[in-house]
Parts: sequence; structure tokens; C-alpha cells
Amino acid sequence: MTSPAQIVILGASGDLTLKKLMPALVGAARAGKRAFSVVGVSRSELDDDAFRARVADALDDDARAAFGDLAPRVHYQPADVSDEASLRALSERLDELAGGEEVGRLFYLALKPELFAPAVSALSDVGLLPRGCGREGAFRRLVIEKPFGSDLASARRLNAELHALLDEDQIFRIDHYLGKETVQNLLGFRFHNAIFEPLWSRHHVELVQITVAEDIAVEKGRAAFYDGTGAVRDVVQNHMLQVLALVAMEPPVSLAPEAIRDQKVQVLRALRAPDREDILRHSVRGQYTAGEVGGREARAYLDEEGVPEGSTTETYAAVRASIDTWRWSGVPFLLRHGKRLRKKYTEVQVQFRTPPLQLFNRPEGMDDAEFSRRLRDGSLCQIRPNVLTLSIQPREAISLSFGVKRPGAAMVMSPARLDFDYRDAFDAKSAPAYERLILDALAGDATLFLRADEIEASWAFADALLDGWAAADAPLAPYPAGSDGPDAADALFEGCEGGWSRG
Amino acid sequence: MTSPAQIVILGASGDLTLKKLMPALVGAARAGKRAFSVVGVSRSELDDDAFRARVADALDDDARAAFGDLAPRVHYQPADVSDEASLRALSERLDELAGGEEVGRLFYLALKPELFAPAVSALSDVGLLPRGCGREGAFRRLVIEKPFGSDLASARRLNAELHALLDEDQIFRIDHYLGKETVQNLLGFRFHNAIFEPLWSRHHVELVQITVAEDIAVEKGRAAFYDGTGAVRDVVQNHMLQVLALVAMEPPVSLAPEAIRDQKVQVLRALRAPDREDILRHSVRGQYTAGEVGGREARAYLDEEGVPEGSTTETYAAVRASIDTWRWSGVPFLLRHGKRLRKKYTEVQVQFRTPPLQLFNRPEGMDDAEFSRRLRDGSLCQIRPNVLTLSIQPREAISLSFGVKRPGAAMVMSPARLDFDYRDAFDAKSAPAYERLILDALAGDATLFLRADEIEASWAFADALLDGWAAADAPLAPYPAGSDGPDAADALFEGCEGGWSRG
Repeated sequence: MTSPAQIVILGASGDLTLKKLMPALVGAARAGKRAFSVVGVSRSELDDDAFRARVADALDDDARAAFGDLAPRVHYQPADVSDEASLRALSERLDELAGGEEVGRLFYLALKPELFAPAVSALSDVGLLPRGCGREGAFRRLVIEKPFGSDLASARRLNAELHALLDEDQIFRIDHYLGKETVQNLLGFRFHNAIFEPLWSRHHVELVQITVAEDIAVEKGRAAFYDGTGAVRDVVQNHMLQVLALVAMEPPVSLAPEAIRDQKVQVLRALRAPDREDILRHSVRGQYTAGEVGGREARAYLDEEGVPEGSTTETYAAVRASIDTWRWSGVPFLLRHGKRLRKKYTEVQVQFRTPPLQLFNRPEGMDDAEFSRRLRDGSLCQIRPNVLTLSIQPREAISLSFGVKRPGAAMVMSPARLDFDYRDAFDAKSAPAYERLILDALAGDATLFLRADEIEASWAFADALLDGWAAADAPLAPYPAGSDGPDAADALFEGCEGGWSRG
Repeated sequence: MTSPAQIVILGASGDLTLKKLMPALVGAARAGKRAFSVVGVSRSELDDDAFRARVADALDDDARAAFGDLAPRVHYQPADVSDEASLRALSERLDELAGGEEVGRLFYLALKPELFAPAVSALSDVGLLPRGCGREGAFRRLVIEKPFGSDLASARRLNAELHALLDEDQIFRIDHYLGKETVQNLLGFRFHNAIFEPLWSRHHVELVQITVAEDIAVEKGRAAFYDGTGAVRDVVQNHMLQVLALVAMEPPVSLAPEAIRDQKVQVLRALRAPDREDILRHSVRGQYTAGEVGGREARAYLDEEGVPEGSTTETYAAVRASIDTWRWSGVPFLLRHGKRLRKKYTEVQVQFRTPPLQLFNRPEGMDDAEFSRRLRDGSLCQIRPNVLTLSIQPREAISLSFGVKRPGAAMVMSPARLDFDYRDAFDAKSAPAYERLILDALAGDATLFLRADEIEASWAFADALLDGWAAADAPLAPYPAGSDGPDAADALFEGCEGGWSRG
């Protein structure tokens, strides 16, 4: 296919388009890997110039300077998905812009979630989105933003509606977390380096922690939506479970999109929320109260503009989950996400078991036999010397802690770290997540997009957790803004397992 | 035992005493962990003051400043091991210096190897070295310098002579390499960190390299001795095999000296030199020719003062050895030592296998099936992403190489390193090797000393190599001073195994 594809953005006057998509498209055009034009669509009555001006206004200085090249290929067509005539006009305009050539088209739904199904249906009705055109050439593909459903039932319904009209290979469900280099590198790190895979199981891993900590409050103008959603649906069900799937999946047979997604979905299906009887012991739901973030007073969630009085929505969730696979049975996966925490960071920590026989760091006056017995019965805890930390943001880094002998006559082991920081290693800056994902969708590479079954498996976990909380009438643990979350979450660790990472 | 022990140095006027032992003893006294006095013994007619003056003269400024505290406890007694009367006088002097107390005595043989057995015999005859006094209290122990024998037969003979008079736990055979922090840390690193042990076998290790490279020439005044010895006997048989034993041993049941030495000896006994039919293919003996070291002209070995004309002594040895244990069967251990090489460094490299399935870095235009086939049949080699480097000297460091995704749309993996440097981690300076070892011998801890069976197993390997060379009339490969050794050594690597480390 040589003719430039068309990227048709529905919802072109919204924030997502102006703040995220257009900057990403300017970047993609500058990278020059694939030619494309852009057609903005919304109900607003704008012409090309007015739209270009709006886009330019919203770009930062750097992107605006680069916009000149793309601008002539940015167009605008007013249309409303509930107005068939307007969609026919859109269709004619797209053909006209294609100049009689057969070009590929990517429809990007930057719309409210309740419009996803109606929009696809309407596009389909006017022939803009025919089934069976996922592959190269004059493809017709769809990019859908999150949230994809609000629970398993609604996600299934939306998938059914999409599958009634489109093939799965035409549907690109986006989770921008998968566009991050360090998230993708989870695959490379695990499956290019033969030394990690033999360690990567219940035999050698004691527990896995995944943290997605945000320091920001609920965003302005998004409070009403957020209050109906909460931390589990907003972040845990999607971003966090995607990271978990890449960490815990079996090796794929190839890097083909379906080979990878087949393995991810296996893990997501085997992921278990705590049982009803354990739900209060193995999970915590929290909400931030007034506190201090970065040296400034921060108000409580309940005092945020737009949050309904007395809301009990969780802004924090921590859960001790498990994965019922041959590889991971019995290994706790400790997941934690919250807003208004001490600092912003996303990281995975794989904590390895201590050696089967502890030769070192025996307390003075204790003999070998007692030392072994007390370590076995848990009345004496040793620091876990080996923790692999995969930092995803804001720092992109890998570190492996281990013990080395402290200089001196005694065999005393001290903690040390092997460190690697992406910034020190590569000059090339990572492409922003959206830029990468849009280019992948143009190229028809679905690796970094969520398949229907992945989404549904993720919702099954979220539903189990939320239903468990509802059934147990789980209390809402308050935590001060700027803290590390509710103290109650510390109790998710047992025995000598240690505690949450500090980022 | 509260009374200070006596360290009796036989050969007190020699270089070893003045350059190595006395500085170590000044350091040990300053560290203050154990009180001791020193009695220098040699044939020279000196008194205490003259000996102290000689010692002070040989110390560096720093040690000389600290010598004041130890000096009053440094004595001298002339004696000759072939003169019984002089030894009886020594015995009386030692008793007198002990002031009637029962004190421990450590006899340090800083003598020529041919005097080891006669000296022990003579000390024994006058009652200075009674059998059965290895343990604490009024112990009588012996420290013997290397070389311990010059082949298996002579080492066995010397062991037999020692065992005829002493118990094994009275005998401390020194190899100063074991006094180095980073050598000891091989134990801590392997057995404190549970993540390495599962990888530490034929299942995951492709090969192990051990390099002891020296940039210096044969030392002045030592050429005649060296020429009768060669690289294998001088370094490979002792230092290098000690490092190998710590790298390859099974986990000990405890840190007790015999627990560790029992495991070391198992590995040394299972170490195999190349078979006769492979000896020329799997080993290289070399000798340096004229070249350039550190920007200065360097003469050939044959032109060094004291080297006999036409000498064919090896100054370089490289060998592809194997270890016939359950753990290491089939894994090549590539050992390399030489004088007058490009730089001075000692390191161990553990090179891990590539992943069983290569997902990344497939050449463009090659499909998965061909890629797999060509990797299997060895017609295409991939860089080994995972190499653990344990740097022993001069840098004391640990690094683990691995592959990370290069930023960008393609799944291209680039080499990266996790690094740890002791100097960055610990303020405390390591004690010099001799200081550590003398304190251990005083304390009766034999962990870092060589047991009779270890020495003999090491000689069995050296003999097999040297005999193999003799039988095959192995050629002497020349290499220029300042180079990385003979080119022929590169051929010890096979297929896609790679090559020697560059340090």
C-alpha cells in the first residue's frame, strides 16, 4: 500500500484529540515512518482552517513548529453519528480527499464511552466500516479508547455489539500504558535474557508487587466520572492488569500479536481476587483525606469540586491477588494503586526467596541449628537479599538488589544493588505512547492493543474484587493526601514477606 | 586464651618478611583484634633494635608511623634450622619472652621451599612444634608459603613429611589470593543470593572464563626460579584453581572451614585437563617476545636477566578444561594466565546460554523457521546477552550484562549492564590479604588456607597439563609483550561461544 492512509478522529473537538492525539500525530508525521492524512470529525461547524488553528493553539511550541508539514494534510468535516446524512457527507469527503485512490482508514473513537457502540453502528450503516477489512491495503480499522465497559457484563455487551459488525482484527482497543517503552521492555527483558526465566516461578519467587502510584488528585472536570468509577475500574482493571499480564505470562511461541495476546489472556483468566472469606484480610479500599502533597496543603477527596457529598468511592485499592497457574500457584501478587499518594511512580518488584540454607548473618550467640529452626518457623526474619525492580515511570530503570560481603574478617553480607537506567544507555528518546500506538494501528499491528477476551478476563477480576467488597461491606480506609496510603494495606504482607516498596 | 600469641618468622631477613609480612603485621596490630608479639629468626646476627630498624626501613611512611605501637613487641633471635643448639636457644628465648605464660605460637616459614621439611623437622626435634596442638590455648601452628611442591609427587612427599610430625589442623598452607575480599566474596555472592544458585549449572551456563592476567615481566632476581617453574606451576595450579574451586563448588553445609574445603576438594578432584588427543586443540602454551607495555618498549622473555638462553618455559598458559561433576559436565572452563599481557586483571566470567527460543534480533528478511534452524545448526551466531563478570582485581566489581529493548517501534534488543563497584559501596578498605590471613591463622581459622588434599588435587591437574604438553611436544606460541597473548588461544572457543574477555 503506497497511498497515505486516513486517520478519521471522531470527537475531534474534545480534549483527548487536542491534548493527546494531535501532538502524537505531529510526532508520527515527523518520524516519517508512514504517510497519513487526518480528518477531524465532530458536531462543531468548523472548516479545515479553523480546525488547524485550534490544533495549533493546543500544541506546545515545539510541536507547533513541526505542525507545518502535517497541517496541509489535516482536514475537518462536521458530522454527528446520530445523523446519517452527515455521515454520508463524511464518506464523500473522505473519498474526495483520497483523490479516487483506495486508501486505508483508521477510525479513532475519541468519544464518550456511551457513544462507542452507536458510532460504530452508524459508521457501519453508511458503509464506512465494512467487516473483513482488517488487513493491509484499503483497511478499515477502529481504535477505541478506554473505558471499555464498566464491568464484565457491559464489556461483554460492547464486544458483542462490535463483533456483530466487525472482525476482531479490525478492532484496536487502546490502553496507552502498553505504548510505554518500559512496559514493552517487560517482554524483551524476560524473553531475551535466559537467566531470568528459570527464576521466574513459584520455585524462586516469594512475591510480586505492582505499584501504580499517582500524586495527583482526581482531575478537574473529571470528578463526576471518576466518582462513578473509582480506583479499581480506573487503573487496576486496565493499566495494572496489563503490566501484571506481561510480568506473569508464559513465553510466547513468537512475537506475533496473537501469540503474545494468547499468553496474556491465560494469565488474566487465572488471576484470582481474594475469596469472600479473605476479602477484608487481603484487600484494602481507601479514600484520601486532607493532607499535604509536595509541601502544599491538599484537600480531601470529598472536598474536590464535583465529588458528591458523602461519596464512598475508593481512590485507593490494594489487593493480595493470586494466579492459579502451574508457574505462579501460591505466589502472592500484591497490587496497589491510589491517587494523591506521596509520589508518582509505577514499578514492578519481584522478590525472590531466601536461600534454602542460610549460611550468613547468623546473630551472635545463636548456633546453626537454632538459626535454621527460627528461620523456618518464622520467629526470625532475614532481609530478602534479591529483589528485581522494574521501574516503569517516571524513572525508566532496572535494578537488582543482592548481598555482598562487607569488607572484614566476618562473613557479614550487606545489601548492594546492580543498577541500569535507560537514560544513561540510550540517546534516543522513547516515542510518546500515543504516537507509537497510532502508528501500530496504522500498520495493523495489534500486539499492544487489548483483545476482547483480555478485556473480559480483566473485568472478571475487577468485578470479583468489587463484588467482594460490596458483599463484605468493606470499610473505606482513610489516608492523608501525600501519604503512602492507608496503614491497613501493610497488613497484606504476611510473616517475613516484608512490606511495600517506597518507590 | 588471653596471653598474646607469638608469631615466629623463620626467614626474617628475607624480602617476603620485610615487604609483605611485617607491613601486614603492623596493620594487624593497628586493627587491634588480637594481641601478639613477633620474633624474627634468621641466620643473620642481629639484635632486636637492629631488626626493628631494618623493618622500619622497609615500611612505607604510613606503616612506619604506625609501627611505634608494635615495635616494642618485635624481637629478633638468630638461629639456623640446621643448628640444633641455635634452635634450643630460640626455644628458651621464646619462653623468656612469654614471661612464664603458656602462649600460642605461630611459626611462619618464610623460607626457600627446599627448607620447609628440614625446618619443620628441626623445630619438632627441639620440641617447638609438638603434634596435637592445633586448637586454641597454647597452640603450635605452622604457616607455609607457596610453592608447596613442584608437582604432585613432591607435594605428596612434603605432605607426608609434615603429617609425620604434625596434625593437619596445625598446618596453614597459604595462598594469598584467598585473602582477597573479592575472592572470599565468591562464596557470599553465590550462597547468600538465592537467584544465582539455580542458574549455576550446565543447564544455564554455556562456559566459564577465568583470567589472571599480569602486565609485569618476570620479577628481577626471580628469573632463575621462574624459569624452572613456568606459568602453570606459578599461578594456574594455585591462585587460579582456588578461584575456580570457589566458583564451581557445591554449596557447603556450613561456613565451617572443613565444610568449605570438603566441597572445594571435590571440584578440584573432578577437574580435567584436555585428553591427550585434544591437548593441542584445547590448550596453548606461550612465551612473550619483545613488544610494548604501557607505551614503553618491553624486551622478550629470553632477554630478561637471568633467563637461560633458549628457554622454552611458558610465560602464558590457556586451557579449555572441564569438570566432571553432575553440575558442570559439558561446560568448558576456559583458564588463562600470562605475564607481560596488555593489562593486569583477574576476573571470572560466567557466560549464560541464550534463550531456548530466540524471539528477538532476527535478521531482516529471515523467517522464524529459518532463524531457529540457523541458530540451532550454528551457522548464525547471536551475541550472548547474559554474562556475569566477577572482577577480582584491580577493580573489585560485579557486573551482569543483559539485553534491553532499544527505544523504538522494532523489538531490537541492545546490550546493557547492571553494575556494582565495591569502592562505591563500602567506605571500609579491605584488609591486605596477608594481614587477613595471618589473623586467621592466629585464630585457628583454616578456611582460607589450603588443605593437603586440595593441594594434591590441584597438582594432579597441573601435572596432567604439563605431561600432556610434554607428550605432545606442544609448540611454544610467541606473543608480543603488551598483547592479549597468543592468537592461537582464540581457537579454544568453539562455534558461537564467543571469545576471551578484554578485562
